[in-house]
Amino acid sequence: TTTTINELANEVEEQLSDEQIAVLLESFPLNLRTSIWESLSDETHQNVFIEMKHDSRKLLLNTLDDEYCFPLLTKLDAVHLIELSESLDNRFIDYAVTNMTAKQRSLYKKSCDYTEEEVGRWQNFTEVQLPQRLTLSAVKKVCSKSLPAFTDVVYIVNDDGALVGEIPLNSIFTADDDQQYRSLIETDVLFINTNDEIADAAEKLIDSDRSALPVVDENHCLTGRLDLPAAYRYKEDILASQLNQSAGLVDEEDLFGSIWQSSKNRAVWLGVNLVTAFLASWFIGLFEATIQQVVALAVLMPVVASMGGISGSQTITLIIRGLALGQINDTNKRNIIAKELKVGAINGVLWAVVIGAITYFWFDNPLLSLTIFIAILGNILIASLSGVWVPWILNKFNIDPALSGSVVLTTVTDIFGFIVFLGLGSLLLL
Amino acid sequence: TTTTINELANEVEEQLSDEQIAVLLESFPLNLRTSIWESLSDETHQNVFIEMKHDSRKLLLNTLDDEYCFPLLTKLDAVHLIELSESLDNRFIDYAVTNMTAKQRSLYKKSCDYTEEEVGRWQNFTEVQLPQRLTLSAVKKVCSKSLPAFTDVVYIVNDDGALVGEIPLNSIFTADDDQQYRSLIETDVLFINTNDEIADAAEKLIDSDRSALPVVDENHCLTGRLDLPAAYRYKEDILASQLNQSAGLVDEEDLFGSIWQSSKNRAVWLGVNLVTAFLASWFIGLFEATIQQVVALAVLMPVVASMGGISGSQTITLIIRGLALGQINDTNKRNIIAKELKVGAINGVLWAVVIGAITYFWFDNPLLSLTIFIAILGNILIASLSGVWVPWILNKFNIDPALSGSVVLTTVTDIFGFIVFLGLGSLLLL
Repeated sequence: TTTTINELANEVEEQLSDEQIAVLLESFPLNLRTSIWESLSDETHQNVFIEMKHDSRKLLLNTLDDEYCFPLLTKLDAVHLIELSESLDNRFIDYAVTNMTAKQRSLYKKSCDYTEEEVGRWQNFTEVQLPQRLTLSAVKKVCSKSLPAFTDVVYIVNDDGALVGEIPLNSIFTADDDQQYRSLIETDVLFINTNDEIADAAEKLIDSDRSALPVVDENHCLTGRLDLPAAYRYKEDILASQLNQSAGLVDEEDLFGSIWQSSKNRAVWLGVNLVTAFLASWFIGLFEATIQQVVALAVLMPVVASMGGISGSQTITLIIRGLALGQINDTNKRNIIAKELKVGAINGVLWAVVIGAITYFWFDNPLLSLTIFIAILGNILIASLSGVWVPWILNKFNIDPALSGSVVLTTVTDIFGFIVFLGLGSLLLL
Repeated sequence: TTTTINELANEVEEQLSDEQIAVLLESFPLNLRTSIWESLSDETHQNVFIEMKHDSRKLLLNTLDDEYCFPLLTKLDAVHLIELSESLDNRFIDYAVTNMTAKQRSLYKKSCDYTEEEVGRWQNFTEVQLPQRLTLSAVKKVCSKSLPAFTDVVYIVNDDGALVGEIPLNSIFTADDDQQYRSLIETDVLFINTNDEIADAAEKLIDSDRSALPVVDENHCLTGRLDLPAAYRYKEDILASQLNQSAGLVDEEDLFGSIWQSSKNRAVWLGVNLVTAFLASWFIGLFEATIQQVVALAVLMPVVASMGGISGSQTITLIIRGLALGQINDTNKRNIIAKELKVGAINGVLWAVVIGAITYFWFDNPLLSLTIFIAILGNILIASLSGVWVPWILNKFNIDPALSGSVVLTTVTDIFGFIVFLGLGSLLLL
């Protein structure tokens, strides 16, 4: 099989991009993955390493001997090391910092001054910046060389490095002498600050119909640029992490992640849910005597719990996105609650009637039917209300509602549902 | 308040981009939204209308009289109408088609030949294409005009309109005469076909480090280009719809959507879940006699159901993403199942022990403790197995696993959990 793997690896290297190889590797179980990895060329190694998911990268570093790890971390760009650092141990980061060029090291250290929420972490340093004093022929000379991706304008800086304007590449055609060239500089430039929030900056860039925007520091010095791929990478991260967190998965879990690591990641979430499940059990336990006499109550408990849970999760998903987009504020919160309560009332009445009727035909007991009617209606209303309030309050306390919202919500709807259903059952049916 | 709204509208128009205005409008309840809308200028109306979410757009059209709707649909671009068509009634689409320029109409009709999964629907027509026979001075003249966004290369076509190559804008600086200009044409061009799958094409573009790629039809004629915003819009759509569907929300539901429409959308999902909840109830009902004698079983049911549900949803979320990325196939499916079962076994044993112990201390009944131990372990294992199989099978039958996967899975884990727990309880505890 070694020949086959070698052939496969060769074909893979010829046909696929680095990112595609990274995705492909992640679709192999760990033992095969290592064999394919070993058959790839050294150059491919580093490029693919950079494109991998964090989790897969950690796995790879754990699998390889140090002598194979270090070459992957040599001569990295500042931008790449920033991206990788999340999945690297300190000793690897230290090695990488020592083994990058002086220029990249200083860029890396500057980027580290910013938090993950600030533009400084997301900028790259491939922009073309030209001194204001350059002549037209010099500008033409620079611009006629091969330019970095996403370069349709060049930025003009003064002697202090401050951004004074930009020139669209194509406008340089029209310029014949230096005088005219100066007039080409557009001084009304859209720019971003290094400590702007990346969320706002990404929107600004995407709205601007540009492929990149210049980034300046507090002295208006041009430090780099934010390009579209970075802006969209940020937006994708947000969506993907809401999706993962809503299932209690760690971001970027590898399909073939280490079994112990996967188990550990997921155990946390199972444990949290267990606490809430036992809490629900404890409340049910308060009504043991009632259940013993009216077993139908136990039979119908899943219906009460599930209708509340689903209603709540529909509302909370909508609200979490609205909070992330900044669409929900103190002023319109009331209107949103009013709307969700109305939707909850309509679905509450509809399904309470349906469930009440089914219960009546099943158990032939009008009081049981009335009990579940009230419990369903009440639970769907509470779910709608909590679907707005729970993420709102978590957000106020700076707790990510995508992660913890659904647990808190299910706890509320389970417990409320059981108390109303079993409590009312005790009153009406005993 | 009319003055205030007018002032607000003026300020909004000055300060915000069309997309930001659309997001802002969506954060207002419907009655206020209409007032603000009426205060915006006619020009802003159409631009904001294009940027809105489908759901909000439909709401707006329902609110406005036809005389106000039609101007919004006049002189639309083909690309915009393609995007809007999902949220427009046929009479509005017909009106828009009649009231666009002949050129845009023909582009629109061509785009309609492709499905939503094909590049033909996602391309735009803003690329710069130049005939091969042009002289250098003519090329310079065209390129020195203001160019569309994301233009860093111009495409060269032959007399039949077939793509022969591209020229990077900046390389035109170096050309002095026509001979040299011809040599600038790079003929080894990365391109996309109109009927390629948009999923692959988007990845190809993103991997290419270009801001756009040319799109050609089956005769290699240049028909348009795919740009980065379109590629990322596609990727975002996929993620956002997985997120919405997992909560049974219709895509793009408006925060203040019409109450009836929202209720209707969500009712469907509640109804589907109700069927599965009653199915679970029916299975519990089979063990009525057992529950009556050992009420503790009813008390502990939520623990069994919830642990299975959570385990399953962790696995299924991972698998749905793997399927979407094409990382899961017949060959590695077994390895994935093996891995998920191992993770399930570890968490199953861990939590079965914990829950068994808690149950023992709570109810002081070793057989009840053994019952729940086996039920939890079995249910987490089944959840891990179904978490792989359920989306895999749904996918084979071309059913979107993001939408229906979690319901099927919960049904499996609920019913399996209750049967094992209550069945074993009947055997051991009666």
